[in-house]
Amino acid sequence: MNYKLTISYDGSRYKGWQRLGDTDMTIQGKLEDVLFQMFFEPVEVHGSGRTDAGVHAVGQVAHFKIDKDVPPKEIKEYLYRYLPDDIVVTGVKKVDDKFHARLSAVEKTYVYKIYNHHYHDPFLRKETLHVQDHMEVEAMRKAAGYFVGEYDFTAFTTAKSKKKSMVREIKEIEILKSGHEIDISITGNGFLHNMARKIVGSLIEVGLGEMKATDIPGIISSKDRTKTGQMAPARGLYLYKVKY
Amino acid sequence: MNYKLTISYDGSRYKGWQRLGDTDMTIQGKLEDVLFQMFFEPVEVHGSGRTDAGVHAVGQVAHFKIDKDVPPKEIKEYLYRYLPDDIVVTGVKKVDDKFHARLSAVEKTYVYKIYNHHYHDPFLRKETLHVQDHMEVEAMRKAAGYFVGEYDFTAFTTAKSKKKSMVREIKEIEILKSGHEIDISITGNGFLHNMARKIVGSLIEVGLGEMKATDIPGIISSKDRTKTGQMAPARGLYLYKVKY
Repeated sequence: MNYKLTISYDGSRYKGWQRLGDTDMTIQGKLEDVLFQMFFEPVEVHGSGRTDAGVHAVGQVAHFKIDKDVPPKEIKEYLYRYLPDDIVVTGVKKVDDKFHARLSAVEKTYVYKIYNHHYHDPFLRKETLHVQDHMEVEAMRKAAGYFVGEYDFTAFTTAKSKKKSMVREIKEIEILKSGHEIDISITGNGFLHNMARKIVGSLIEVGLGEMKATDIPGIISSKDRTKTGQMAPARGLYLYKVKY
Repeated sequence: MNYKLTISYDGSRYKGWQRLGDTDMTIQGKLEDVLFQMFFEPVEVHGSGRTDAGVHAVGQVAHFKIDKDVPPKEIKEYLYRYLPDDIVVTGVKKVDDKFHARLSAVEKTYVYKIYNHHYHDPFLRKETLHVQDHMEVEAMRKAAGYFVGEYDFTAFTTAKSKKKSMVREIKEIEILKSGHEIDISITGNGFLHNMARKIVGSLIEVGLGEMKATDIPGIISSKDRTKTGQMAPARGLYLYKVKY
């Protein structure tokens, strides 16, 4: 059987998605440990992609294969009972054998949450980025528009490979402001390593007036990583949705 | 000078509002320590009321008197810089010498936050009460209506004093449901010790069908503490607003 999992996690305590060793604080590690305990055999969980240390998810997707036929509801309940309370599997579904969480994904959405006020909110301090100086949302929206399209995003990644393509398509960037909260939602057909955080970092600098919106096209085409804004910290980033 | 403070805090790490000793994890203690450091003299901070261990606030009010005339903005900035990041003073104002945070208060609002779904939300796990079984909000609203008015709330407190009046007026109880979140907002001219949590505990039992809405008037008039629902835990409770 091939099972698809949808997972929500507060990444604050974790070293990211990808398992690093036998016993470690990673999301993949925790899931595999509980599934091992359930099935009495090693289970390999494949995520739609890695999330870095401290990055959150509300709609991470993963799959695993097992030579047993167990009702999805039973797996969901078992995982809910034994996973730590900052990881919740919100969906378990039997899927076609060909389904692969990473390879079958056609679109991903990340959301970056900012709290933009001189004083932070004590209830949002761990899961948003606090920016004290006023940000101009209209300038950020203008800058966001320049990212939409199919480009070589070499400047906006920390990925090292020179063999693989750095071309990705950003389909939409939406910036919503509600009270002091600013949510940046980025949808693309795929993301290079740290690409979402590098894009957000530049949007923040535009919001603060440290970079011009009209600088973006030139930075993209330069493929020069020294020209982009600072990479935004992990704590504000959420893997929001994966589409298949 | 008499200064009025408005304070927001995540109470999770604290033993409550009231200072217990020389160095302790209380909100009052933390405020007094930072003000002592600022003014080089002991400062007594008076809250509008105590909040228990684990209870939060978005609009706690306090005052302190000091024989110095410092711009409120300066005090606010100093407190923001030196308080731990789960306590934020959102307002500092010079007030009349007769203003007293507790004695001048005419109305308080508490909000209790519940997450009502079989699975909890990892991002709300620390600041809401998770109730797994479905709650009937309409029944809770009906029950809430019976609390509104001026009553002897002996049954709905853990206060011990037999000398002081147990009569309080509940002015309004509003229950809002949004997605899986249920917020119970209770406004009254004053609250006895644990009264908000005891009222919420009974509303939860009504929501779960363990108590009938129409049982409430009889429980109030009985003054019998064994008849009320379980006291709701601290983690979902917020001192929301104090009116003067």
